[in-house]
Amino acid sequence: MNDIPQTGRTKLRRLPDRALYDRQAIYDILDEALVCHVGFVDQGHPYVIPTIHARIDDRLCLHGSRASRMLRCLSQGGPACITVTLLDGLVLARSAFHHSMNYRSVVVLGKGREIVDPPEKTAALHRLTEHVVAGRWADVRPPSENELAATTVVSFPLDEASAKVRTGPPKDDEPDYAAPVWAGVIPLTLTAGPPEPDSRLAPGTGPPGYATAYHRQSRTR
Amino acid sequence: MNDIPQTGRTKLRRLPDRALYDRQAIYDILDEALVCHVGFVDQGHPYVIPTIHARIDDRLCLHGSRASRMLRCLSQGGPACITVTLLDGLVLARSAFHHSMNYRSVVVLGKGREIVDPPEKTAALHRLTEHVVAGRWADVRPPSENELAATTVVSFPLDEASAKVRTGPPKDDEPDYAAPVWAGVIPLTLTAGPPEPDSRLAPGTGPPGYATAYHRQSRTR
Repeated sequence: MNDIPQTGRTKLRRLPDRALYDRQAIYDILDEALVCHVGFVDQGHPYVIPTIHARIDDRLCLHGSRASRMLRCLSQGGPACITVTLLDGLVLARSAFHHSMNYRSVVVLGKGREIVDPPEKTAALHRLTEHVVAGRWADVRPPSENELAATTVVSFPLDEASAKVRTGPPKDDEPDYAAPVWAGVIPLTLTAGPPEPDSRLAPGTGPPGYATAYHRQSRTR
Repeated sequence: MNDIPQTGRTKLRRLPDRALYDRQAIYDILDEALVCHVGFVDQGHPYVIPTIHARIDDRLCLHGSRASRMLRCLSQGGPACITVTLLDGLVLARSAFHHSMNYRSVVVLGKGREIVDPPEKTAALHRLTEHVVAGRWADVRPPSENELAATTVVSFPLDEASAKVRTGPPKDDEPDYAAPVWAGVIPLTLTAGPPEPDSRLAPGTGPPGYATAYHRQSRTR
């Protein structure tokens, strides 16, 4: 896949060796992250709200209540920044200064457009559900007309975006390597525990495989 | 501890039963979260950048390179929104519409002030290091004068903030409970793996307890 062109706003000035503009690498990070943090401006003040996202080809979709301030701002085409971050580890160096984290993050800039066409909207909700739990949509009651009307879906083009990735061991100043201090990486993973069944399950409804063996894909690690 | 007063900007209008303004509850979430997402406005466009934070009493501190655009915007007192999110579980309902997540998030609004006094700055860096790995500061080389000068530290008052928390099982529409669909919660936790030693460790430097048994406190769960 091709690169996403750098712009003045997505070009990394600090630590440019951590930057990635490769479209597939960016998509892999977006697809693995469960939630994003959406930045928007309301009356001159920035707000950052966590929410679910899902990628549909070259667009990123968000959804929420029709009553949400965030969705109202975004559906009116206000400028947005959508950031996802995957934490992969804590990097313990021999000096306080060189401590760091291993992570993969993506920043998407752009303006949204509301998806109003019902089949397109349902397709986006389908993808949002599948993004979180692949296989779930087929098992559940799909949205009713009222539920669809109560939901706003906004989609963003993925044409201004960049990734930033740090991997590997600490990088210490040469004289510090002699210090008798343990250094290295503490790996971090978001892990799923055993599913907790709802107390009102219909008889004979055991947990599906996507619940008992839940995991995020991590193609780029 | 007292509540943080609600303002027109932090009062939750959507799902107000999920809102918390209790100062201790907000502090517990800030203290458990490893990273925050910082929103700021540059030339009219919102940006959201992940970074480490640390709470010192009733203030929240961020740090970074003196060359960072974010730190420059924040240290100049531009309005900011600092959001942390802890994912606790995926909530699988019987309808697509009622799917949700269990989470604890905090939104902090405010303007920063740069910490320039060297002892105060070092104290903030100490706290930032200890926020990530409690016990680490005492083991490592502290920042040199040059490293201190290369770092910007900005602190924010915690006087405009709110938390939003969802816990518990799915809430389905009454008729959907009869459906033969598994429903419940898939719990999620950020877990640490075995520490990976740096290849250039000085002889005899085994991993400290804070690395082999790393975990985040979670007082509010």
